Amino acid sequence: MTTVGILGGGQLARMLALSGAPLGLRFLVLDSTPDACAAQFAPLLQADYRDQAGLAEFASRVDVATFDFENVPAESAQWLADRVPVFPSPRALAVAQDRLAEKSLFRELGIPVPEFAAIDSRAGLDAALAKIGTPCILKTRRLGYDGKGQFRLKSPADADAAWDALGAQAGTVGLILEGFVAFQRELSVVAVRGRDGELRAWPLTENWHESGILSASLAPARVDPALQAQALGAARKIAEALDYVGVFALELFLKDGVLLANEMAPRVHNSGHWTIEGAETSQFQNHLRAVLGLPLGDTRAVGHSCMLNWIGTLPAAAPVLAEACGHWHDYGKSPREGRKVGHATFRADSRGELAAALDRAGRMLDRSAQVAPVLGRLAESSG
Amino acid sequence: MTTVGILGGGQLARMLALSGAPLGLRFLVLDSTPDACAAQFAPLLQADYRDQAGLAEFASRVDVATFDFENVPAESAQWLADRVPVFPSPRALAVAQDRLAEKSLFRELGIPVPEFAAIDSRAGLDAALAKIGTPCILKTRRLGYDGKGQFRLKSPADADAAWDALGAQAGTVGLILEGFVAFQRELSVVAVRGRDGELRAWPLTENWHESGILSASLAPARVDPALQAQALGAARKIAEALDYVGVFALELFLKDGVLLANEMAPRVHNSGHWTIEGAETSQFQNHLRAVLGLPLGDTRAVGHSCMLNWIGTLPAAAPVLAEACGHWHDYGKSPREGRKVGHATFRADSRGELAAALDRAGRMLDRSAQVAPVLGRLAESSG
Ligand SMILES: Nc1ncnc2c1ncn2[C@@H]1O[C@H](COP(=O)(O)OP(=O)(O)OP(=O)(O)O)[C@@H](O)[C@H]1O
Ligand SMILES: Nc1ncnc2c1ncn2[C@@H]1O[C@H](COP(=O)(O)OP(=O)(O)OP(=O)(O)O)[C@@H](O)[C@H]1O
Repeated sequence: MTTVGILGGGQLARMLALSGAPLGLRFLVLDSTPDACAAQFAPLLQADYRDQAGLAEFASRVDVATFDFENVPAESAQWLADRVPVFPSPRALAVAQDRLAEKSLFRELGIPVPEFAAIDSRAGLDAALAKIGTPCILKTRRLGYDGKGQFRLKSPADADAAWDALGAQAGTVGLILEGFVAFQRELSVVAVRGRDGELRAWPLTENWHESGILSASLAPARVDPALQAQALGAARKIAEALDYVGVFALELFLKDGVLLANEMAPRVHNSGHWTIEGAETSQFQNHLRAVLGLPLGDTRAVGHSCMLNWIGTLPAAAPVLAEACGHWHDYGKSPREGRKVGHATFRADSRGELAAALDRAGRMLDRSAQVAPVLGRLAESSG
Repeated sequence: MTTVGILGGGQLARMLALSGAPLGLRFLVLDSTPDACAAQFAPLLQADYRDQAGLAEFASRVDVATFDFENVPAESAQWLADRVPVFPSPRALAVAQDRLAEKSLFRELGIPVPEFAAIDSRAGLDAALAKIGTPCILKTRRLGYDGKGQFRLKSPADADAAWDALGAQAGTVGLILEGFVAFQRELSVVAVRGRDGELRAWPLTENWHESGILSASLAPARVDPALQAQALGAARKIAEALDYVGVFALELFLKDGVLLANEMAPRVHNSGHWTIEGAETSQFQNHLRAVLGLPLGDTRAVGHSCMLNWIGTLPAAAPVLAEACGHWHDYGKSPREGRKVGHATFRADSRGELAAALDRAGRMLDRSAQVAPVLGRLAESSG
């Protein structure tokens, strides 16, 4: 009997537990809140990530540990790793937690990235602005997610406002300035690397964001095979450089035929949720297989899938459930603005069928705007 | 927030909970043993089915109740149904619990059945034997499962031994004598009926038993469309006669082109486990959708599936996980002779691929005998 400990008890932990149950696994979720949604389906240890007594109890009750939440303090991850196997490793986590470290690594590995500069001071911001130009984005180096901790600058005149918003964090989580990429498409590679170094990737996913939060994903994304290979090559280089174990996502911008690496997520990723129904093996089960040293499952897509994220509140489930290809995922969370409370995946054998279902459901759910970019892509002629 | 109560905490309850989580449901499992395997993923209320205080607490904590175990005492089901909605209804449960009642209903509905006779006494057994002839099977009317409570008679000389084995139960759970059907194939229809009366069925499944326990299933079974229609027609008639709500299975013998109804299971069924990976919607999720009055999901098969049951002990998981089309289901139970401890499903796009994977896995697992009949069927030419 193997117990997998998960740091963080959100929807990722919940879906990990649900997909790990058939492997005969038990779980223990560490979360500071009693109503962590994963706790509806897995035992909860309520403690803060920095609480050493909590971490000690956690370590004593699990055989291996992994993450639902990537911003676990590096010291806590290391403390745990000194006691139980932790995957991905604290080192990989530390790099992926820090926008400056990850972009520096990408660049070192020869992977194209948007222009960026570390920002330590107001003067540093001005200097970087002069070099990178506008539009650009000031971001916290660490602890950002769902577009939080970001300030967009349209012109150098926005520097004051940007500094007012984020300057105080220069000395804590650190800041980075990135050139704004006027991308044509956003893509992600979700991949998994086993303990033995085997790497498998799901087909590329195309993503659409709304206010910095993932809104919709379409997979397999239709892209030039050369780009597909380039994306996979980048994912492989990064995973090998970090001796990464488990699932990770690499977010990419496609601009004028070039793929620029935006960031990596050292965990199962929202842009891989479609793999539950749309791939032979889901990202959740493959993450667990990797972490446990089991054979990795097939990452092939089964048909065509579109995932729609539900942010803040859930729409009515019935229009999704009524679609032959509609699958519903309610995370069991209470509604709150900007919170990911669920998603739906539509999986069909052809792009045409998928478009028809999305179109109907979008109208029934009053979410036509959300499905519009996906429908636009699906309407493009092949090739 | 809806809580579904499940009477019985075995693997069926476990898979119901896992597949109901994405619907945002909570669960409460009632079981008399603390180590019921469903309790690893759902809260457990430990109580006997006849314990009124336990039932009262259960009723107070759930919004709707259903069954993992069909042999819940009829009075307990009725007591609950007077307090919360219970699906399937206690009446449907009562009929399906009783081999005599169900076979009588089938016959009434014009559905062919093996010859059968109720047995009340040793003299009654002799009279029935004279009428039905041998080979035949003496079975308990109620509380039988996995071939338990059955005695096969090859000749009238076996009557003494049969009566020694089961005679004492004539006055408790009752007895029935059935003609032995020298069937060519065993098939099952797994179907679901909604609260609104809508009926959907998965494609027919072919099943193989070993010592009275399901050993392997293959779906979609290749059968004459006329037989398929006849099987579905029988399932529909039964479901309508019982005003059935939820998933049920109808087990059939195919003999010389005629389908004979063996029995119905008033719950999700082992011969429907392949629907987790092999159908657009699994039997587990559709059961919950039916019970909750949600739209039913598509029951179409996605490719070709074979399920292998693991009885007693689990074989090694790796050979299954290493197959691209292999999916593992460990129920988290301790090993015990005759106990269903897990299953594997192989799902492939073609019958050829499925056969190749089964053949490999069968050899790696030392289960060649278990896969042999399935391989034999897959090797038959189409039509
Ligand atoms: N340099 C950039 N140029 C253009 N758009 C950007 C840039 N950086 C971020 N964005 C937009 O904002 C979205 C969210 O940004 P980013 O991925 O950096 O933030 P995050 O908070 O880590 O998000 P997530 O939690 O979704 O990974 C991106 O997917 C993209 O749409
Ligand atoms: N009348 C019969 N003629 C031939 N074989 C039979 C007959 N009755 C039962 N069997 C064989 O025994 C198996 C189990 O019998 P049955 O379905 O009646 O028992 P059960 O204990 O209710 O099983 P389960 O729990 O699998 O439904 C059947 O699937 C079939 O292979």
